[in-house]
Amino acid sequence: MTPQSEDFSAWFNELVLKAEIVDRGPVRGTMVIRPYGYRIWELLQSDLDRRIKETGHPNAYFPLLIPQSYMQREAEHVEGFAPELAVVTHAGGKVLEEPLIVRPTSETVIGEYMAKWISSYRDLPLLLNQWANVVRWELRPRLLLRTTEFLWQEGHTAHADEADAMRETMLALHEIYARTVRELAAMPVIEGEKTPSERFAGAARTFTIEGMMRDGRALQAGTSHYMGTNFARAFDIQYAAQDGRLTHAHTTSWGLSTRLVGGVIMTHGDDKGLVLPPRVAPYQVVIVPISRSDQGAEVIAAAAALAQRLAGSGIRAHVDDRPHLSPGFKFNDWELRGVPIRLELGPRDLAAGSAVMVRRLGEGKEPISLDGAPARLADELEAFQDFLFERATAFRDSHTVTTDEWDDFTKAVATGWARALHCGTPECEEEIKAATSATARCIPLDGEPESGPCILCGRLSAYGTRVIFGRAY
Amino acid sequence: MTPQSEDFSAWFNELVLKAEIVDRGPVRGTMVIRPYGYRIWELLQSDLDRRIKETGHPNAYFPLLIPQSYMQREAEHVEGFAPELAVVTHAGGKVLEEPLIVRPTSETVIGEYMAKWISSYRDLPLLLNQWANVVRWELRPRLLLRTTEFLWQEGHTAHADEADAMRETMLALHEIYARTVRELAAMPVIEGEKTPSERFAGAARTFTIEGMMRDGRALQAGTSHYMGTNFARAFDIQYAAQDGRLTHAHTTSWGLSTRLVGGVIMTHGDDKGLVLPPRVAPYQVVIVPISRSDQGAEVIAAAAALAQRLAGSGIRAHVDDRPHLSPGFKFNDWELRGVPIRLELGPRDLAAGSAVMVRRLGEGKEPISLDGAPARLADELEAFQDFLFERATAFRDSHTVTTDEWDDFTKAVATGWARALHCGTPECEEEIKAATSATARCIPLDGEPESGPCILCGRLSAYGTRVIFGRAY
Repeated sequence: MTPQSEDFSAWFNELVLKAEIVDRGPVRGTMVIRPYGYRIWELLQSDLDRRIKETGHPNAYFPLLIPQSYMQREAEHVEGFAPELAVVTHAGGKVLEEPLIVRPTSETVIGEYMAKWISSYRDLPLLLNQWANVVRWELRPRLLLRTTEFLWQEGHTAHADEADAMRETMLALHEIYARTVRELAAMPVIEGEKTPSERFAGAARTFTIEGMMRDGRALQAGTSHYMGTNFARAFDIQYAAQDGRLTHAHTTSWGLSTRLVGGVIMTHGDDKGLVLPPRVAPYQVVIVPISRSDQGAEVIAAAAALAQRLAGSGIRAHVDDRPHLSPGFKFNDWELRGVPIRLELGPRDLAAGSAVMVRRLGEGKEPISLDGAPARLADELEAFQDFLFERATAFRDSHTVTTDEWDDFTKAVATGWARALHCGTPECEEEIKAATSATARCIPLDGEPESGPCILCGRLSAYGTRVIFGRAY
Repeated sequence: MTPQSEDFSAWFNELVLKAEIVDRGPVRGTMVIRPYGYRIWELLQSDLDRRIKETGHPNAYFPLLIPQSYMQREAEHVEGFAPELAVVTHAGGKVLEEPLIVRPTSETVIGEYMAKWISSYRDLPLLLNQWANVVRWELRPRLLLRTTEFLWQEGHTAHADEADAMRETMLALHEIYARTVRELAAMPVIEGEKTPSERFAGAARTFTIEGMMRDGRALQAGTSHYMGTNFARAFDIQYAAQDGRLTHAHTTSWGLSTRLVGGVIMTHGDDKGLVLPPRVAPYQVVIVPISRSDQGAEVIAAAAALAQRLAGSGIRAHVDDRPHLSPGFKFNDWELRGVPIRLELGPRDLAAGSAVMVRRLGEGKEPISLDGAPARLADELEAFQDFLFERATAFRDSHTVTTDEWDDFTKAVATGWARALHCGTPECEEEIKAATSATARCIPLDGEPESGPCILCGRLSAYGTRVIFGRAY
């Protein structure tokens, strides 16, 4: 495999194929998500789904195919998405009277039903989520990170006023996205607001969580949008307020997709392969039985019994009993697939009541007692989860430079992020991008109050705090 | 609402809209699945997903858009699906070189990858499942039952030989579908094989679970197909056997969809509304606080505390504290929505340490002690689940006639099912359909050995047992 340091993109593409995370789809830019990759998504998904439900959002499902006229009602929305649309023109053997858009996102169709379902202030807030596939015809698709079709959840809510809608926008960002991504994916994401030029098409304000990958680039891992009354006006989402006045609702939407699986890989992986945080690892512990054929059955039975005990303690354990492969091959294979802990179990270990533990990032081997294995491994997995988060935080911090000098800025964004003051004009952002490939990733929500001259043009800074710039996926 | 006895279809369509199960989609034949309906689907889904995983099938995800050429490789498959396809001809602002089919089912695209991933007998069996949306342009769409887009799971597997593939086909039917549908949906489905004319397009054998709705019609609630080597030949799914010979795999597929939610409604519902089996009821118990405004807060707090205690015992409980609606309105509303048990809680009940229990199908009201409520309600819910299954079984049996007389047959299929001998020719099935609207639903797997003259044409019967005929959805 190509080393990360040599060509990070090649490393990533080779790894996701080799580790059987995804395969290339038959149509340009599409992907097949293979069971090992899909399991990572399911683990993220079930945590997100729980948080989404606990914060009051039931799941629903809206149609895939959207009448073209819906897409055209919100001017900025259609302008943003028009170049990326896939269009159904024929169905049931006939030309359709109105072409149908394969949804790139569902604000329009959900807006139509919000308008239908909301009549009084008592119907608010209206909170919805859906798990769905969406299609965006990408000019420069990238495996897993920017695919023509991807899976995601999209939350859509309607509120009586700006304050309630903004509360919702931040709830999705803080309590749903940032928490799942930090706690499960072990990614120390920064929460912030997008600059106007990076906003979602049709949004009044867009918020994001941004993670740093091991090549120093940023990955937008989830976004939460306050729409103002833009969609409410386009779709006539109105309610009778307590005083009887007909009032436009304020809406939000927020989405997180399968690209997060790519984020996990690029945050933690190394030249040997994936490094999976235990909470999203399909297998947290893999047991490799080692023995000559005459003792094979006994060792495999002991391995299976151990796996059973580990499963009983809530540890996802797997016995690799493939008879035609050598232990050495298996060790490499599970390293490639990022399993946090490997246990080697042979007749001598069995006799001693122990197994040999090898951590995915540890050095050397360590015998552990079989009796104490469930408790010990639970501790090890928790420590590994914490370690990955801390390592990624340290990496991010050591690749982030606070600077007021253009030269330092250009150096910083070549290998990581720069925290700089910016004038807030889209033209100046464009110039920075043309010169360095870096874009404004976000205005951090926890940024210290600060102002001064813009890093590029010298005009007075906007936003009242520093902006994070970096190259991005 | 239109009574069932007057117009069953009108009853169903009005009910699913009024109970907020679904709404009509913006495109003809599509639907929006609303939170209350989606929750029923999620409860079915999580049980199915568990069984699918426990029987060794991991989830994966394959692309929505399938190259037209893939669809054309298996002759019967394309013939069966061609009239129902939706076609993407434009994307990213350009005309596509090859039109893309919005998947109506995924045998073709998954076949392509099975061919890629399978090389040796060691790669078999290959077991996969996916949860996905599919699109079939229906000539006569029906809300929830036959929609242009629906959600389902589709299992796809490849095996070394017919025996192993048939074992899989029956496993999906027996251990996954029949069990979930009987145990959760409380539908006493019959397991059987389809006659050749009712087979899935491209299958060698198709098996089905068939339920009887309360208008006597049959609903196909899930199907499992043995494909023989049809798709393996079309997509070149071959493996090197142990002796080194290149051999075609035998494949299966099996699917169960959101139409099952419609099946639950048509199996148990009545003129008052839905009747939900507790295991698929979004709310199993709804508590309606009843009080004048001066005691309102106290009663609502007590209701919330009770709901909390019920939740602690694994009961899905909900407090209806909508301040602007009368208790009577709420009673009707939750009857319409099919909640198995309603509890009425007022100041006098509170003082007596009790609540008034009303069963969705019971007569009268019964006080129950608050202390013992969790245990008592758990028992009540289990009894209600069993009762619904037994009632549906009795209904099915009393609407099924075993007959060798054409007159009795025509009468039987006008209100239910007929068990009759049949010659096995498609032409004769066609004649039966033309005369009675009834089709061969299945050849039951547990049918007694029997033969004799065909119910219509008098030729010697096929299949060695009676066939179930009925009108179907």
